[in-house]
Amino acid sequence: MQVIVNAATSADGKLSTRRREQIAISGAEDFDRVDALRTDSDAVMVGVGTVLADDPSLTVDDPDRIEARTDRGDPPQPARVVADSRLRTPADATVYDDSAETILLTSEAAGDDAVADARARDATVIVAGDDRVDLPAAVGRLPDHGIERVMVEGGGELVFSLFEAGLVDELSVFVGSLVIGGRDAPTLADGDGFVESFVDLRLDEIERIDDGVLLQYAVS
Amino acid sequence: MQVIVNAATSADGKLSTRRREQIAISGAEDFDRVDALRTDSDAVMVGVGTVLADDPSLTVDDPDRIEARTDRGDPPQPARVVADSRLRTPADATVYDDSAETILLTSEAAGDDAVADARARDATVIVAGDDRVDLPAAVGRLPDHGIERVMVEGGGELVFSLFEAGLVDELSVFVGSLVIGGRDAPTLADGDGFVESFVDLRLDEIERIDDGVLLQYAVS
Repeated sequence: MQVIVNAATSADGKLSTRRREQIAISGAEDFDRVDALRTDSDAVMVGVGTVLADDPSLTVDDPDRIEARTDRGDPPQPARVVADSRLRTPADATVYDDSAETILLTSEAAGDDAVADARARDATVIVAGDDRVDLPAAVGRLPDHGIERVMVEGGGELVFSLFEAGLVDELSVFVGSLVIGGRDAPTLADGDGFVESFVDLRLDEIERIDDGVLLQYAVS
Repeated sequence: MQVIVNAATSADGKLSTRRREQIAISGAEDFDRVDALRTDSDAVMVGVGTVLADDPSLTVDDPDRIEARTDRGDPPQPARVVADSRLRTPADATVYDDSAETILLTSEAAGDDAVADARARDATVIVAGDDRVDLPAAVGRLPDHGIERVMVEGGGELVFSLFEAGLVDELSVFVGSLVIGGRDAPTLADGDGFVESFVDLRLDEIERIDDGVLLQYAVS
């Protein structure tokens, strides 16, 4: 299993404003790169906070890339995986549409009714953990669903939890040329934060794209 | 007046842990670069939060650089400027030692006694603003003290306030190859944050140093 975190932040490390409103951090070149990354992934994963804030589709846009996927025997779209400990993903969320497979990673705290409701919407539900999703266990079950390469698109709470669980293999950050600011604005890695030992990265590539810079790291 | 913000952050935009404990983000090459930047500045500025957390000296280390300053007719050390609305800088803070001039920017809220105490410690005190330092007014008075070029070394609250006041000319960020995480960890620009219009930067230089990357921006 390979887990790649991909995000766009401001020069001060923010994913969005303190109001959780998405703003244009990157440009056309980075959008295209992200579309290609999705194409090469078996699944695109986000936390439920991102679903609630942005209602993303998480799908590949470019018709040629969709065709390339089917040509090689993959489904036209990568699966959408939502880490959602209490199954708060709304019934009308775009991730429930029929454009791609939907997998929810949840915990016992979600309750049987919510799990049944999600399954009735054709979602695959993986239950692991008591109060919160047990990420190593839940992510470890994704290969049973044909998923070997996952691209994580945020938010900061999920990204921190994945780093904390030692599940991240690579990190790509597009650093946009702007300052958002805000002590309460979401950052690339939120959660409780590390205090004694930290995640060491190896900076493998630096590339200027759009009006910013793409930094690509491997987790050491 | 030229204001240059310089900081080292983790790949997720943090200046330190949520406990405000400084950790090694950069290395010898970046320390040397910062020492050179201090040498070329008339003053090094921080917020009182940084004084309380780190008790920094803010002085130039390299004896050759100190000599170069005196050779060109400057004081051996740049002045130390602390933005300190209520004069919370402790009497035994290193910034009060006699290795360099000390200037405190404060507000009326500090009170006459605290101002008199600080002046008794040989600090220059500039009072501007009622409850909080009026930064444009206070920074605007620095040239009266021979200060035309200020290097700002944090923290995130001061940096945001300076961006909000439109006072920043340049931003240098060393992005270290590690993840710190933490929704409450200080970032490069904290404060309330921007929500509608943002500070646009122009990415002028990208340089790999130590095990990370230095990004140098002009404020557009």
